[in-house]
Amino acid sequence: MSDDEVRRVLAGLVPAGDLADPERSRERWGRARWSVLAEPGDGVAGLALQRLGAFRALQCALRDDTPPAELGLEVRDWRRACARWRPRQGDHSYAIERAKRVGVRLIVPGDPAWPERVDELGIHAPVALWARGREDTLAAPAAAVALVGARAATAYGVQVAGEIAGELGVAGVTIVSGAAVGIDAAAHRACLAVDGSTIAVLAGGVDKAYPSGHAGLLTEVSRRGVVVSEVPCGTAPTKWRFLQRNRLIAALSDATVVVEAGWRSGSLNTAGHAAALGRALGAVPGPVTSAASAGCHRILREYDGRCITSADDVREMLGWTDEPGDAAVLGEGGRTDDATRVLDALSTRVPRDVAEIARRSGVAGEEVSARLGLLELDGRVVSDERGWRRAGR
Amino acid sequence: MSDDEVRRVLAGLVPAGDLADPERSRERWGRARWSVLAEPGDGVAGLALQRLGAFRALQCALRDDTPPAELGLEVRDWRRACARWRPRQGDHSYAIERAKRVGVRLIVPGDPAWPERVDELGIHAPVALWARGREDTLAAPAAAVALVGARAATAYGVQVAGEIAGELGVAGVTIVSGAAVGIDAAAHRACLAVDGSTIAVLAGGVDKAYPSGHAGLLTEVSRRGVVVSEVPCGTAPTKWRFLQRNRLIAALSDATVVVEAGWRSGSLNTAGHAAALGRALGAVPGPVTSAASAGCHRILREYDGRCITSADDVREMLGWTDEPGDAAVLGEGGRTDDATRVLDALSTRVPRDVAEIARRSGVAGEEVSARLGLLELDGRVVSDERGWRRAGR
Repeated sequence: MSDDEVRRVLAGLVPAGDLADPERSRERWGRARWSVLAEPGDGVAGLALQRLGAFRALQCALRDDTPPAELGLEVRDWRRACARWRPRQGDHSYAIERAKRVGVRLIVPGDPAWPERVDELGIHAPVALWARGREDTLAAPAAAVALVGARAATAYGVQVAGEIAGELGVAGVTIVSGAAVGIDAAAHRACLAVDGSTIAVLAGGVDKAYPSGHAGLLTEVSRRGVVVSEVPCGTAPTKWRFLQRNRLIAALSDATVVVEAGWRSGSLNTAGHAAALGRALGAVPGPVTSAASAGCHRILREYDGRCITSADDVREMLGWTDEPGDAAVLGEGGRTDDATRVLDALSTRVPRDVAEIARRSGVAGEEVSARLGLLELDGRVVSDERGWRRAGR
Repeated sequence: MSDDEVRRVLAGLVPAGDLADPERSRERWGRARWSVLAEPGDGVAGLALQRLGAFRALQCALRDDTPPAELGLEVRDWRRACARWRPRQGDHSYAIERAKRVGVRLIVPGDPAWPERVDELGIHAPVALWARGREDTLAAPAAAVALVGARAATAYGVQVAGEIAGELGVAGVTIVSGAAVGIDAAAHRACLAVDGSTIAVLAGGVDKAYPSGHAGLLTEVSRRGVVVSEVPCGTAPTKWRFLQRNRLIAALSDATVVVEAGWRSGSLNTAGHAAALGRALGAVPGPVTSAASAGCHRILREYDGRCITSADDVREMLGWTDEPGDAAVLGEGGRTDDATRVLDALSTRVPRDVAEIARRSGVAGEEVSARLGLLELDGRVVSDERGWRRAGR
């Protein structure tokens, strides 16, 4: 395929200025093709892209029956992967034309809009993202919190999701969710209502509203934020794609908070991804007599999730205190640093010694002592002969 | 005071057979006197009893103005303590006569009924216990769970407390609580309703019902279990005695579970004592919109309390699984051993590696590996290339 052909295919999918570099365009085109070939989270595809680049990986995948040496793969595993990919090689023209027609953009690693948070997924990171709306929302340095939960939400869950999303939205936090009925929709809507920024992550192509009743909601999201998917236009959601979509919701967010979830809710899958990524994880409790909260209680118990009762609790979980300036600090990353882990390991009431804090925080004892000293200077912790405590507000 | 006089004073307070040993009788009499002299949890009194024995400590406290060398105390601290104790030296006759009149027994360390769990309080352990009812309940090897909570309980809290207490009571677990209105009473009542064994710990003397409306309930508790206090008969409850009573509830129990509690509830004090003693601690969540659950949510968030939704969750927290025979194992102590801590650090869903499990359990890595191997043989954990998980039920 010539450089001109590549440029022609990409025209309209990416900003025109980005087509100047032929090598980068080939890479971008290769990733667009890969997003059609491979299912979300395909580790062999991810490895091939990482080691060979998208364009060369594509050539190997479509032509060779022996794995490129750089991959260190068994012949059997490579051939099995190729057997997954090759039947889909003709599908890309429709996906690309459809994206152009409905104004969907292609975003690949290295683009200004690429959300670097997802790179932590390693070889399971998305090969590309298809975005409808304000794609800069994806890469914004603002803190992002996933608020997800049951489709079969109760009035209680919808109310609490709305309150937390609205309050975080006002504070400039991007709300990430899955646009499903129930909790997801309540979170997006409350964020939109306060002119907040929100990301809807779909399991199918962003050209089609899923569920169809949410077409209006998704259009609103695309105006104030972005609707995004790693699968191309024209792709239907499947069970697998929903599960992988959940990993993307977790990966796009500094924290995941589950508002209501049944015992076997898909939201536990999102929670599991957040935990596996080492991201902050919380759940909103509810009456133990409510089946719609059973999954949240599992997250508190089995996933060491944090008990979230308000937007303030989310801020505290992220180490985002009330002091002015901290918002900016959180914006520049928002990940849990050692100071936050030490703070999280403290109680405002029960004094703890350094060994105990080291155990609870997973931070080395010497580092704990150093952090405590700095935090004490800041007035954020207090100590006496019984140990260290977090300072009250 | 002659041995005969001591024997005469103690007659009726302790089983007649226990009066044969004069030295032990003097010690017992000394502890009875100390329980009148010193407020609950008095550390100087505890130290003096530990180092000198109750009888000699009493002689020193009432006569000397220089601290016995064994105590290693400053003169100032000793004199301050004596100034607390001496004004109360005349009070004991009434307390002892009153106890005999209403059939209250005196229990001291070394007695068959003495609950060894409270010895973990060290110099803050009670000097003696005054018990009304079946005092053997105190020392029973059965697992004991404290169920405590708000006076201002909601119908939801009363229902959940009743369900958990009833189910644990049926299973042979002793329910410990404070006989207050609200959650405490619901826990005692549900346990009595299933013919379970229960302990009511009072902040004042056990000769008087507190609150007075619970006279009938306390009589029922004394028939099927025991009403106990560390303060002697005739002693009114005070704020300090309530707080110290809470430490005793925690110390008498393998686990403390708070069912409903306001933001500043006294139940958080009980929870803090349980945490400080390294006992299992749980809280029942509720709607985040209910002020009566705000304290429970604090326990989940700030005290690392476990989210408890049912009696099964309490059993799981104590490592008390469904296998027959485990009940007996729990009965012989019920404390959290390394195997239980390793199990608690596992999820049924998210695989974890040894380093992570070591971090979460606070058990050394080598020990974690050994425990995991044994637990795998028992079919209680499973592993794959991603790590270790707890086996499903």
